Amino acid sequence: MVNIRQLSTADAGFEQSLADLLAVESAQDDEVTQVVHQILDNIKSRGDSALMEYTRQFDRLELTRIDQIEISPEQVQTALQAIDSEALAALEFAATRIRQYHEKQVAISWQHTEADGTMLGQKITPLARVGLYVPGGKAAYPSSVLMNAIPAKVAGVKELVMVTPTPGGYCNPLVLAAAAISEVDRIFTIGGAQAIGALAYGTTTIPRVDKIVGPGNAYVAAAKRQVFGTVGIDMIAGPSEILVICDGQTDPDWIAMDLFSQAEHDEQAQSILLCPDATFLERVAASIANLIETMPRHEVIRTSLQNRGALIHVRDLQEACTIANQIAPEHLELSVENPEQWIASIEHAGAIFLGRHTCEALGDYCAGPNHVLPTSGTARFSSPLGVYDFQKRTSLIQVSSEGAAQLGRIAATLARGEGLEAHARSASYRYEQ
Amino acid sequence: MVNIRQLSTADAGFEQSLADLLAVESAQDDEVTQVVHQILDNIKSRGDSALMEYTRQFDRLELTRIDQIEISPEQVQTALQAIDSEALAALEFAATRIRQYHEKQVAISWQHTEADGTMLGQKITPLARVGLYVPGGKAAYPSSVLMNAIPAKVAGVKELVMVTPTPGGYCNPLVLAAAAISEVDRIFTIGGAQAIGALAYGTTTIPRVDKIVGPGNAYVAAAKRQVFGTVGIDMIAGPSEILVICDGQTDPDWIAMDLFSQAEHDEQAQSILLCPDATFLERVAASIANLIETMPRHEVIRTSLQNRGALIHVRDLQEACTIANQIAPEHLELSVENPEQWIASIEHAGAIFLGRHTCEALGDYCAGPNHVLPTSGTARFSSPLGVYDFQKRTSLIQVSSEGAAQLGRIAATLARGEGLEAHARSASYRYEQ
Repeated sequence: MVNIRQLSTADAGFEQSLADLLAVESAQDDEVTQVVHQILDNIKSRGDSALMEYTRQFDRLELTRIDQIEISPEQVQTALQAIDSEALAALEFAATRIRQYHEKQVAISWQHTEADGTMLGQKITPLARVGLYVPGGKAAYPSSVLMNAIPAKVAGVKELVMVTPTPGGYCNPLVLAAAAISEVDRIFTIGGAQAIGALAYGTTTIPRVDKIVGPGNAYVAAAKRQVFGTVGIDMIAGPSEILVICDGQTDPDWIAMDLFSQAEHDEQAQSILLCPDATFLERVAASIANLIETMPRHEVIRTSLQNRGALIHVRDLQEACTIANQIAPEHLELSVENPEQWIASIEHAGAIFLGRHTCEALGDYCAGPNHVLPTSGTARFSSPLGVYDFQKRTSLIQVSSEGAAQLGRIAATLARGEGLEAHARSASYRYEQ
Repeated sequence: MVNIRQLSTADAGFEQSLADLLAVESAQDDEVTQVVHQILDNIKSRGDSALMEYTRQFDRLELTRIDQIEISPEQVQTALQAIDSEALAALEFAATRIRQYHEKQVAISWQHTEADGTMLGQKITPLARVGLYVPGGKAAYPSSVLMNAIPAKVAGVKELVMVTPTPGGYCNPLVLAAAAISEVDRIFTIGGAQAIGALAYGTTTIPRVDKIVGPGNAYVAAAKRQVFGTVGIDMIAGPSEILVICDGQTDPDWIAMDLFSQAEHDEQAQSILLCPDATFLERVAASIANLIETMPRHEVIRTSLQNRGALIHVRDLQEACTIANQIAPEHLELSVENPEQWIASIEHAGAIFLGRHTCEALGDYCAGPNHVLPTSGTARFSSPLGVYDFQKRTSLIQVSSEGAAQLGRIAATLARGEGLEAHARSASYRYEQ
């Protein structure tokens, strides 16, 4: 049995039930914040020696020389040769599709010249050096390496520096293979807040980067938050979630498994199904009960579904879309007939998976779009990780002497209105002489 | 006399001198952080009543009803009619140019269908509701309203909510005029951390927004940092800076005034000149000495130039570009012959002002590009404020049954490699049946 919450939009108090369901404990732990603050300070002031101490302590690594934290290209090649050929082919296939999709996101510089010779434009430049955090141990996901590294390389980032903790010296060879396939430039076996500090401030061994991306635990997240501004960071991810909208015509086992696929990540993951067909919701509940024991991670799935999952009866698919917009889900499956008709109704979602054959797992690995998506309703204001996260813009302004005569007068008027006389004078010099 | 620092790249220790010059005290004040944390907590838990208390306390406003904090459209119209017609015309002219430039930044949704019927795409949606913070009192800049509001409206943001403190009840009519011209939807006379909290969490009176942009003091900056994640925020700005590269052929008075125009903002602002002609540097120093007493804000300018300014002798213009890339300046003037030849050499800058007639002030007000630019070297990884800050992306994935047969196998292989059996099963259902 799985006691998954069953709700209906017709229930009195549905709005509150939904709000409670979506609430995430996002409070930052003060103790974590303090510990991280101290680690960052130490890395900033003592560099490599602090980095070695923390790595010995937290990752139980017997380091005698600092250069032992770098994985050599030879070690990467050894890992590549050791892994299963089917796995390697699958990684390469996925990498190709991810690359092809992201190539469509590349922004191009432009310039426009006006009649009087004034030119305005926007110059696009890749970030020079980027740090990629990859969690170690069991949660080391090669797919995550591809999804973070490939957009950076498509953007033109020259130096992509990966860090990954190797507790007790273990490093997942698939992670190294994914790094090789996605052209990561350097790999260091460091992790935690100390790795984030090393990337943000630079040490003798670790080059200072311009931006840090990639998932991590609470310490890594707190460290990223604290170095934000010194370097760029991607979003700080909350628990992963899926919202499935189904018209009741998909195989209920498929839908149950899609809900499982999110729930198996961790106990905080969230799986919600919206359907206008009450009978179908019962069938999915039966599939869940029927299938859960066959899953290796059934304990995690059960806890996640019971704590944070829900099967919700809606009036119709239009209402389902309204609720989807309230939730602004990370992943939205439209497992319905003619799914494309609903695209216009969805304003907020990280990714939309259209049609019965498009389960989230295809997008997680190999469809092409990024699997790093805004969680916890942040799709209201943020986007999937993309090439645009690794490119930046510079405004170009070249005012002709004729243009300066016109723009200078306007600027001088506005500057004087703001009490900024040097601005006004700087502008008026350009047309008075 | 102005004791502005004179350096040369030929000096021993130049690198360290430059690093010292650029160092910004960016440490977050722990006391400010704590005070702001408490204000945000109070706004979150007590909403409007806390908001009224803080506004009475900090802005000395005699509020008896909460709806007194909203400025009515009639009040805005009254302000519009009261202001000088030349100032109004200048604001409208600037708004038109800003709008035209930003319209070139609008991103467009796309979809691409593959041979087997699989469709991938990217849907662009504007943010639904955005908060715009506008500082009150003397630093209330109408140009800043235009620069923040217009890109949001060009992006298609439906509801743009402006907040601005009105200490003692004073509100700059030019700020209201700028809000009207740039189609701000609602205006509230609140400020400080309490205004940021109200926008981030929503109160009965203040609608919850999806993103908050705009400059503010240390409390506002700390509040934005703390609500980041609950809502989106723009960059947290440091002191403003200008780097001028001159070949020695521009009128030294022009260059001196360009340096003043940055220095007059505040004592922390930074103005640096790079030039290969030592004689010209002397002439600029003479212009500075000669002109400073004519400036209303000469005390601020003097302090800023003495504390943070520099005239730097370089070997040649190529070296000047190298230094510019190290600095990654907010504003870069290329006051040289054929400035366009150097565009390719500049990798990191917020905006480049090309040619002797293009002083920064033209870009600050009316050239068209945004004046909200990355400060303190953050141009290494961030961009001018733009339409892209008010649009977000949603990935679209529609896999055909044929596509699922191929992608499903790859996904299942990769998922099993990561120990995620529900992902694998969810994918394999799509091709096994």
